[in-house]
Amino acid sequence: MAHEIGKETGCLSKPPRSVAIIGCGLIGQAWATVFLRAGMRVTLYDAASGLVEQAKAQVIERMTEFARFDLVTHETLERAPAHIELADTLEDAVSAADYIQESGSEALDVKIELTREIDRFAAPHVVIGSSTSGITASRYSETIKGRERCLVVHPINPPHLVPLVEVVPAPWTAQSAVDTVHDLLSAIGQVPILLNREIDGFVVNRLQGALLREAFHLLDQGVASRKDIDKAISDGLGLRWSLMGPFETIHLNAPGGVSDYVRRFGPMYRDMFADDPDPVDWETVVDAGLEADLTASQPLSGISAAQKTRDSALLRMLAQRSRKANAASKD
Amino acid sequence: MAHEIGKETGCLSKPPRSVAIIGCGLIGQAWATVFLRAGMRVTLYDAASGLVEQAKAQVIERMTEFARFDLVTHETLERAPAHIELADTLEDAVSAADYIQESGSEALDVKIELTREIDRFAAPHVVIGSSTSGITASRYSETIKGRERCLVVHPINPPHLVPLVEVVPAPWTAQSAVDTVHDLLSAIGQVPILLNREIDGFVVNRLQGALLREAFHLLDQGVASRKDIDKAISDGLGLRWSLMGPFETIHLNAPGGVSDYVRRFGPMYRDMFADDPDPVDWETVVDAGLEADLTASQPLSGISAAQKTRDSALLRMLAQRSRKANAASKD
Repeated sequence: MAHEIGKETGCLSKPPRSVAIIGCGLIGQAWATVFLRAGMRVTLYDAASGLVEQAKAQVIERMTEFARFDLVTHETLERAPAHIELADTLEDAVSAADYIQESGSEALDVKIELTREIDRFAAPHVVIGSSTSGITASRYSETIKGRERCLVVHPINPPHLVPLVEVVPAPWTAQSAVDTVHDLLSAIGQVPILLNREIDGFVVNRLQGALLREAFHLLDQGVASRKDIDKAISDGLGLRWSLMGPFETIHLNAPGGVSDYVRRFGPMYRDMFADDPDPVDWETVVDAGLEADLTASQPLSGISAAQKTRDSALLRMLAQRSRKANAASKD
Repeated sequence: MAHEIGKETGCLSKPPRSVAIIGCGLIGQAWATVFLRAGMRVTLYDAASGLVEQAKAQVIERMTEFARFDLVTHETLERAPAHIELADTLEDAVSAADYIQESGSEALDVKIELTREIDRFAAPHVVIGSSTSGITASRYSETIKGRERCLVVHPINPPHLVPLVEVVPAPWTAQSAVDTVHDLLSAIGQVPILLNREIDGFVVNRLQGALLREAFHLLDQGVASRKDIDKAISDGLGLRWSLMGPFETIHLNAPGGVSDYVRRFGPMYRDMFADDPDPVDWETVVDAGLEADLTASQPLSGISAAQKTRDSALLRMLAQRSRKANAASKD
């Protein structure tokens, strides 16, 4: 049975107020901005000498940009320099932190060693999240003493501007560690999603990879130019997908919702990918709960109203693009 | 050799000023709005009695919305009712049009018959575009006398709000017909993309299908909830994809651009989809022209500046979302 952190110590009932950022490259800097923006304190550490000072300057610059768009208050901005601590050693960085976000190298052996060191110095109840985009927690935390508090907390580039974060526990990660991270991310305005089990590429890069695979295929086959394939997304599908996900999109694209859509268009998609060696039957998935889930969020009786809301949002995006184009043409 | 419309008659050197909309469901109405918005005249026809009157009312309502967002001038809005003609017969609708947008039923036999009738009544130089999302022009126009002027002109739902349009000629479609449609769409503010050859699902639905297939797979495997898979796009990838396409996105996601990205992450994506029976080697595609194409649009020396531009756009989107969330919480 997994070691239930929090529940034993009781410490995780208090939300973390101070975070150690281990590794201060672009991702570490972005994380620092995210936590500072929410009024938390951060301690920066990087094994490379001098990097923490540069990172601090970058983080302050980003905070200033956020303030310009009213995304942080002037009070938070003014307090930011005092809320950033620079640590000389890993031990100094992690020993006083309530949460640790590790954003170090993607080399497996380096990550194992770094996690082991963090685990050694951090207070026992503190959760250790890794920004890794490719290494599952099973692989880098298996031999770590406190592996129950280790999990992947993977942001999307650039993390301070794209709210989504993937939370991916190993089989031995404590539920309380998952809950702590999920609550923390939600509280600071990020959008956490939880993977129920580890899978290579997690969810985001699997979805991106599936789209890229088809894009490379279409380009390789000479079906359309690179520019036109890019436009298919940036001037087409991407506009809708910035408002709602792929399932929500198809639920609104047939009068009878997702089951109607899959009945109408399922065969077309099946024929497109007829060489799939392990096809998933979409109708089965719809019946097994997808339709119930979507109609719970968006009942069929409200689809027409939901389309109107989507259309209003698209209209605002069109207007925004038009203003931008007009401004550019006046330059 | 394909019959070169335009070149023979000379008529297509004049851009179309009046369009016949054949089929006045949601797609036909949206097309009418798009053409009217650009100051053109439209004639509406639908075999179902009474539908054209309803369609006219809908189109005027949409024009009013566009005017509210400064996307049409008040002059264009005021003139709109006089710019809409309602036709009683197909012959009346198409005989005086400079361009025909057919948005009828998706049943193959119905579309063949409708296209044959349009071809019979339309002036010989006039191009006939079909809004079909699934039937290639080869299939519905093969036996049409004027098949050289037939091609697919496929919009994305909702067409008056999403600018992308796929232009998909049959092998026998005249180049001048393709050029006319491409020029017309560009002139009225849509974003046309050109398919060099027909393929089931065209480009947009193939890209959407590839993403959906993976989303269904992840849901079926219990990796994440439907809501979280949707969020992975709407709060993650979709934000970037509303600004730039998938190739442009990865070009900005590695310091050395697309070739650097593919070298770093190609193996990860290959392992994710190891069961692909017909894998495309990404490095080969990069070397065969993708890198040259992307660096021509976005030189490596400007990647850092391009990232800043992307980040500014994302910051404005974050601010917009935050204003919306604040407004909603005050309701």
